[in-house]
Amino acid sequence: MLIDGIPGDQVPLSDRGLQYGDGLFETLAVTDGQPGLWQRHMARLQAGEQVLGFPVSDKQRLREEAHALCAACERGVLKIILTRGSGGRGYRPPAVARPRRILSLHPWPDYPGIWYKQGIRLRICETRISCNQRLAGLKHLNRLEQILARNEWRDQSIAEGLMLDENGKVISGTQSNLFIVRGDALLTPDLSRAGVAGVVRELVLERARQFGIPARITALDSAALKRADALFITNSVMGLCPVAVLDDQRYAVDRVPAALRQSVQDAL
Amino acid sequence: MLIDGIPGDQVPLSDRGLQYGDGLFETLAVTDGQPGLWQRHMARLQAGEQVLGFPVSDKQRLREEAHALCAACERGVLKIILTRGSGGRGYRPPAVARPRRILSLHPWPDYPGIWYKQGIRLRICETRISCNQRLAGLKHLNRLEQILARNEWRDQSIAEGLMLDENGKVISGTQSNLFIVRGDALLTPDLSRAGVAGVVRELVLERARQFGIPARITALDSAALKRADALFITNSVMGLCPVAVLDDQRYAVDRVPAALRQSVQDAL
Repeated sequence: MLIDGIPGDQVPLSDRGLQYGDGLFETLAVTDGQPGLWQRHMARLQAGEQVLGFPVSDKQRLREEAHALCAACERGVLKIILTRGSGGRGYRPPAVARPRRILSLHPWPDYPGIWYKQGIRLRICETRISCNQRLAGLKHLNRLEQILARNEWRDQSIAEGLMLDENGKVISGTQSNLFIVRGDALLTPDLSRAGVAGVVRELVLERARQFGIPARITALDSAALKRADALFITNSVMGLCPVAVLDDQRYAVDRVPAALRQSVQDAL
Repeated sequence: MLIDGIPGDQVPLSDRGLQYGDGLFETLAVTDGQPGLWQRHMARLQAGEQVLGFPVSDKQRLREEAHALCAACERGVLKIILTRGSGGRGYRPPAVARPRRILSLHPWPDYPGIWYKQGIRLRICETRISCNQRLAGLKHLNRLEQILARNEWRDQSIAEGLMLDENGKVISGTQSNLFIVRGDALLTPDLSRAGVAGVVRELVLERARQFGIPARITALDSAALKRADALFITNSVMGLCPVAVLDDQRYAVDRVPAALRQSVQDAL
């Protein structure tokens, strides 16, 4: 683990990440010492810095630190946390913040191969995701809703839970983005009011365009899930994973475009 | 500072408070070594523990630690943070969480006496507060919305900003609760969907009942602010503070019931 470039495993109590969740994070798949989709992760991090009013961090330095930490790692997960740094008691940020960067390397989760071949099982969570246009899309440190949602089930045969907003719109999984396949088109939830704009979600939308697969960002309710031919979820570590079952409904795993699956796998 | 009863000023990176804002906090006014409104703060903390699925913490032990830390403090602010403790990467909480308790003592903020005599100046924040029924009322560690709101102004003559939800309902200040005086009655926003259920807010509602002042919890929009005869805000450190000005509108500070003001001051 590296804290501001120095090996360490503790942060000061005064850190605003701990005090208020005042920060951002990124989770990157590491292969042969290389953190994947680096530029995309950095673009999202920087978008978050702008919204939270952090000074823009030095991405080249971050890259050097990431490479140093991951050099000996064949397969793993790099987590980058960027907090607003230390600050006094009270919500008002210091006039000049000195963000703290925290890099940690974690074991690869080893998702079962069968998930990708036969698809995973999902459920719908009771915990709703709240709407805030300023924070929507960011991967910030305020994750209590996702934690409450993920704490709703212990059944290991369920890989992920979908979260709706307070108006019943489907937003995302607790730790993934959702795509619907309907006919030959893709649909994915509009994240302008809630959710995290995933880097693999962005990649899928780009590749779909390249492959001539119609893809649309739109409001989706649970009826749209019922009408779907197939579902898949995406995240930076899991990649693209087809869904076999959502609650009682089965989906056709082979309706997820194979070219898209292959393309995402190659990119990661 | 005390971490799990031991002097210290750092927490492990693995703490879920830092990783995800997975925790709760309380801020208490300390006078002559005594943290004020202890039972009320502990009741709210425990309500939060239940919602987040923490084991119920030992409040007697917490009290002993608080007293030890505050013993030599004439006037100060005690902050108690309770996180879910350390846990692996990922939102799912450990099956058996071992929460971490963090106590820190801070200087008394010394609010200007003139605030209480002549009233403070407020503004309306642009940052909205999001709605989540499960988290509403709790003082949890996900405070980015309050930070963004508090970061909207640097003008020191403005003491507090009011936050609305996405439907335009007035919820609270960034760090306080709001009361409206209209005729001889009090109104305060319904917090069943957003906001923190303040301990001084609760105290004011109780004392109002005792004094025979009609008090009602209800949805309030900004038109209700315009129709008000007086406004005041409350929090555990500031106590009860009358409002002189909100944006361009002036309010009658002497319309805040004097008995209520005195009663809150005595309780703190």
